[in-house]
Amino acid sequence: MRKQVAIIGAGPAGLLLGHLLKAEGVDCVVLERQSGPYVLSRIRAGVLEQVTVGLMERLGLDARMKAEGLPHDGFNLADGERLIHIDIAELTGKQVMVYGQTELTRDLMEASEPRGVEVIYEAADVALHDIVSDAPYVTYTRDGSTHRIDARFIVGCDGFHGPSRQAIPASAGRSFERVYPFGWLGILADVPPCNHELIYANHERGFALASMRSNTRSRYYIDVPLTEKIEDWSDDRIWDELAIRLGPDAAAHIVRGPSLEKSIAPLRSFVFEPMRHGSLLLCGDAAHIVPPTGAKGLNLAASDVHYAAEALLGFFKSNDNDAIAGYSEKALARVWKSERFSWSLTRLMHRFPEDGPFERRMQVAELDYIASSEAAQRSIAENYVGLPV
Amino acid sequence: MRKQVAIIGAGPAGLLLGHLLKAEGVDCVVLERQSGPYVLSRIRAGVLEQVTVGLMERLGLDARMKAEGLPHDGFNLADGERLIHIDIAELTGKQVMVYGQTELTRDLMEASEPRGVEVIYEAADVALHDIVSDAPYVTYTRDGSTHRIDARFIVGCDGFHGPSRQAIPASAGRSFERVYPFGWLGILADVPPCNHELIYANHERGFALASMRSNTRSRYYIDVPLTEKIEDWSDDRIWDELAIRLGPDAAAHIVRGPSLEKSIAPLRSFVFEPMRHGSLLLCGDAAHIVPPTGAKGLNLAASDVHYAAEALLGFFKSNDNDAIAGYSEKALARVWKSERFSWSLTRLMHRFPEDGPFERRMQVAELDYIASSEAAQRSIAENYVGLPV
Repeated sequence: MRKQVAIIGAGPAGLLLGHLLKAEGVDCVVLERQSGPYVLSRIRAGVLEQVTVGLMERLGLDARMKAEGLPHDGFNLADGERLIHIDIAELTGKQVMVYGQTELTRDLMEASEPRGVEVIYEAADVALHDIVSDAPYVTYTRDGSTHRIDARFIVGCDGFHGPSRQAIPASAGRSFERVYPFGWLGILADVPPCNHELIYANHERGFALASMRSNTRSRYYIDVPLTEKIEDWSDDRIWDELAIRLGPDAAAHIVRGPSLEKSIAPLRSFVFEPMRHGSLLLCGDAAHIVPPTGAKGLNLAASDVHYAAEALLGFFKSNDNDAIAGYSEKALARVWKSERFSWSLTRLMHRFPEDGPFERRMQVAELDYIASSEAAQRSIAENYVGLPV
Repeated sequence: MRKQVAIIGAGPAGLLLGHLLKAEGVDCVVLERQSGPYVLSRIRAGVLEQVTVGLMERLGLDARMKAEGLPHDGFNLADGERLIHIDIAELTGKQVMVYGQTELTRDLMEASEPRGVEVIYEAADVALHDIVSDAPYVTYTRDGSTHRIDARFIVGCDGFHGPSRQAIPASAGRSFERVYPFGWLGILADVPPCNHELIYANHERGFALASMRSNTRSRYYIDVPLTEKIEDWSDDRIWDELAIRLGPDAAAHIVRGPSLEKSIAPLRSFVFEPMRHGSLLLCGDAAHIVPPTGAKGLNLAASDVHYAAEALLGFFKSNDNDAIAGYSEKALARVWKSERFSWSLTRLMHRFPEDGPFERRMQVAELDYIASSEAAQRSIAENYVGLPV
């Protein structure tokens, strides 16, 4: 098979890119190791920046998102007692959209066939070849036989553990990493959220996040040491802990219910640079990971896709080689700023084992300062809704 | 001797408070362990916030400051290459005043006798007694004999090592402290500054600060490990290092000259709370220390003095006991915010031994973000000019 672009990974980043390229007549294929239903079963983030919403609008795939998604005008920081409201609409003129990553992926997936975006699921043993040449190719096995796709470019949207980044020789790039000394214990339940907006809390006992997928489905998190086992956390124990950490006002409105899903996820900051090696471009988690504080992961993947589509369309539609050459630098400038925001919000809202009483007071003082300063609120808000692309 | 208020320490905080109280007819005395000339020989900070300038204006002691001081509309952050200009006048409508702490102290000192502010220099062995009672007293020795001052209140303006804070039993307060793993090596020279505004630089090789006392006297700093010895730093070596760390543009304008003074000072964050114990109030370094990044030390002492004068005048002029009771909480709210700003600017602009490549990139990303965001610049600027009292 010969294509202009081979995209590896049919998560939201790969599907978004496939749609964007196909809409402009670029011939591409998306390869996915898992089945479609498996991809949809992954529970992930649910707060979309304007950049991400804008890409769905551009594709005309925003109807269900507009009907079912929850536009949010703000969110809250909490210090165990009070809520500090960050009025993002007032401060930035923008909103964010609460719409599950699963739903966005479903919209893209369902539109693939009607729009002729070719997606090959259950493609095993994906391998990248000759990526520094102008004629790279991808091989994979499916139904017992080996296949080959020749392409002008390969785009790796295959996540942190996928083969794309690993195809780049170590000597050609550099990794930056920070692993955090705690994980997020998440619970999903079909109960109404305790607040119509998100609450990020830094309580003496630790971090908590109240969020939602819809008006009837809530997603809550607390941070726990990585040594904790999920078996030791009954639903009741999680609800009890949430009620303490989110503070009395939020606790009064928590509706408890049986968990649909419960898990502990580690937190990591990671960046690989450059984001292009020869004819291979990396997008999203394949190149970088943010801790989930601030909900930047999916949105950063979407902005990578925006830049990648721009570069590839420049190449195929306008013979613009510079667009490809500039991809990594453009994408990384925004990546590092989002990494910074995610890291700094994580620092502000979690207890770190190495922190002493002075550092704890610095967190309290920063929350006090934010509560009293429009400039500080505006700075947080503009990062939360997403810096310009 | 019987006074309404006994002030310990004739640095800028103690003298300011003495003048403010005396101007309103409160009978007070200022005790100082050192001689007047010794107090003036201490080289200290030189950037005054509006709060500090305002207190001098209120006292009518601002003539020389207005004539000789340098009002600054901005300052610069540097990352080794470019300068990021923070236009504080545009962003906040305020200025800061470059005027040496020594000069401010001299103005207060010279006005003491004409205005009847009694200052007793070379008062040794100062000790505080019965501070939890309504009749505390201070003893000291001078010219071989012991003296006693009875007062209604004692105010400790005697710095980090003075006897006032130490008179409070450990069980009655709590200390918060962070010691930094480097010191500031400072050089003072009679040369014109390399820039008309301050430059705070975070270079791969470390921190540097270009500042000045006047248009003909410059004050520069670099950070060094605490193990460094000043003897190993010739003037030339310091000038060479400054030229590298401040970046090419600043380096081109550095005028070298022989050092008038050279020293290495440790950096510390420290807060003792509460700032009142019975009839003893603490002001300035007696209660808290900030690292010098951001020049908050003297200004924080001045805002403490503002609150202390308000409380004492409330007590003596309006029989308002609540004013005294509220002093610590009021002062501390601003102290913690200044501690946060000083700590966070120190974190941003220095290399820490425990930081890896990821943390270094977080500094670079934060400087990039600041360079691109008016909200971020406004937040820094409003802290730099001083949060409202």
